[in-house]
Amino acid sequence: MLLAKVVGTVVSTRKEPSMDGLRFMLVQPVDLNGKPTGPHVVAVDAVGSGIGEYILFATGSSARQTQMTDKRPCDAVIMAIVDNWEVRGEIKYHKGTEETKHRQTEWQGA
Amino acid sequence: MLLAKVVGTVVSTRKEPSMDGLRFMLVQPVDLNGKPTGPHVVAVDAVGSGIGEYILFATGSSARQTQMTDKRPCDAVIMAIVDNWEVRGEIKYHKGTEETKHRQTEWQGA
Amino acid sequence: MLLAKVVGTVVSTRKEPSMDGLRFMLVQPVDLNGKPTGPHVVAVDAVGSGIGEYILFATGSSARQTQMTDKRPCDAVIMAIVDNWEVRGEIKYHKGTEETKHRQTEWQGA
Amino acid sequence: MLLAKVVGTVVSTRKEPSMDGLRFMLVQPVDLNGKPTGPHVVAVDAVGSGIGEYILFATGSSARQTQMTDKRPCDAVIMAIVDNWEVRGEIKYHKGTEETKHRQTEWQGA
Amino acid sequence: MLLAKVVGTVVSTRKEPSMDGLRFMLVQPVDLNGKPTGPHVVAVDAVGSGIGEYILFATGSSARQTQMTDKRPCDAVIMAIVDNWEVRGEIKYHKGTEETKHRQTEWQGA
Repeated sequence: MLLAKVVGTVVSTRKEPSMDGLRFMLVQPVDLNGKPTGPHVVAVDAVGSGIGEYILFATGSSARQTQMTDKRPCDAVIMAIVDNWEVRGEIKYHKGTEETKHRQTEWQGA
Repeated sequence: MLLAKVVGTVVSTRKEPSMDGLRFMLVQPVDLNGKPTGPHVVAVDAVGSGIGEYILFATGSSARQTQMTDKRPCDAVIMAIVDNWEVRGEIKYHKGTEETKHRQTEWQGA
Repeated sequence: MLLAKVVGTVVSTRKEPSMDGLRFMLVQPVDLNGKPTGPHVVAVDAVGSGIGEYILFATGSSARQTQMTDKRPCDAVIMAIVDNWEVRGEIKYHKGTEETKHRQTEWQGA
Repeated sequence: MLLAKVVGTVVSTRKEPSMDGLRFMLVQPVDLNGKPTGPHVVAVDAVGSGIGEYILFATGSSARQTQMTDKRPCDAVIMAIVDNWEVRGEIKYHKGTEETKHRQTEWQGA
Repeated sequence: MLLAKVVGTVVSTRKEPSMDGLRFMLVQPVDLNGKPTGPHVVAVDAVGSGIGEYILFATGSSARQTQMTDKRPCDAVIMAIVDNWEVRGEIKYHKGTEETKHRQTEWQGA
């Protein structure tokens, strides 16, 4: 899985019928400091994530291992919303804490 | 899935028989501003897309999860035509709107 | 799928028994102008391609969706020989035409 | 598989139900000298690894071939803890040996 | 598949039980001249390869299509030992020939 931030949405009315009702989210992979790294990906949302949240997404055939994406042409799925992560004992991000090192207001990526 | 623009077509008469009748499209991945990023990919068209349209394509085994590509040696499929996308509340592209930030005439990529 | 040029062959006598009789081709991915881009790949030939031809190859589990590669440890297969491709209405390559923009004599890649 | 070092953990309470009880580890791929290379990945721990240990992780559908990850939206799994590795006869890393060329105190990556 | 050179081994005693008895090889992908290119990979050996040999390895689900790796969390397998390869009619490497352009003594990669 990759750590990423939800930065936007994509709307499509003309698509594979099996994709009806699914939400396409623009997710920006981030490094261990929460900074954007590499190109964005479009992932189906399976956990009710929102813009600005850090999430984990899975790719490839693993992206079809949710009830929502089973047997659909979906190769990326948001399967977890991140509460916090730490690196060698140091908390790098904690959701909803003002003291976090990665406040949303500092975000300038993507 | 990746956001991309359809930029061309590939014709092949000598191919795996199971691929007969499928359309091969040249798609150019784009960034959140619609600018080309990374190398092009050849994807089978499952939704009737046309040159110049922004689309989503899925890769890997997920590319075989459409009726058109099932059990075929196809590793990339166009499974949605994009109407619009937005990033942090700002509309970055809206199909058919002159005011869009990414008019086709501005396209210089690939 | 990726657009590539067949540039060579690989010979192996000691290999997985299920790979006996298959031809290993060295293929060089190319950009929309036919110029080499990215590292080469070794693909099994499922369509009788020859050195110097432009082809499409599929990777991953999709590379096993031919009769020749079914259930074999093969992750790349040539599944189409390219006749021509065009970008935004302009023919970029046409097989066997002297006027093509990518004559073999100009090839200097790989 | 890729050689990597476990550098941290990710916590998520809101996630795909099938992922309950699994540990998400931040792993940093390393080169043959144990130096960080490329972006980190989040992998499910299937072998009881700890922060600072060198491990092997598998990706894609292969990441679901453990009892812990079977049929789950998991695309990366730690499936081995590394005791040592050697390159052309020279031991590059040996776990728990002070004389190793890659003591943890020298680690500055990620 | 990718062309690579076997450069080392990895030892692990604590691992997924299904991986018991398999050999983990460090393989370094090479370009058409036999020079190292891109990061190394750890692959399971299915053909009895040795340090210094050029091999082909397959990745992803295709890496599980050998008797040795079936249903195991293995995403890379050595499935062929290379005798020789040629590019546009020129032999670039021939195993065991002193006149080869890529003698082992010239190898300085990885």
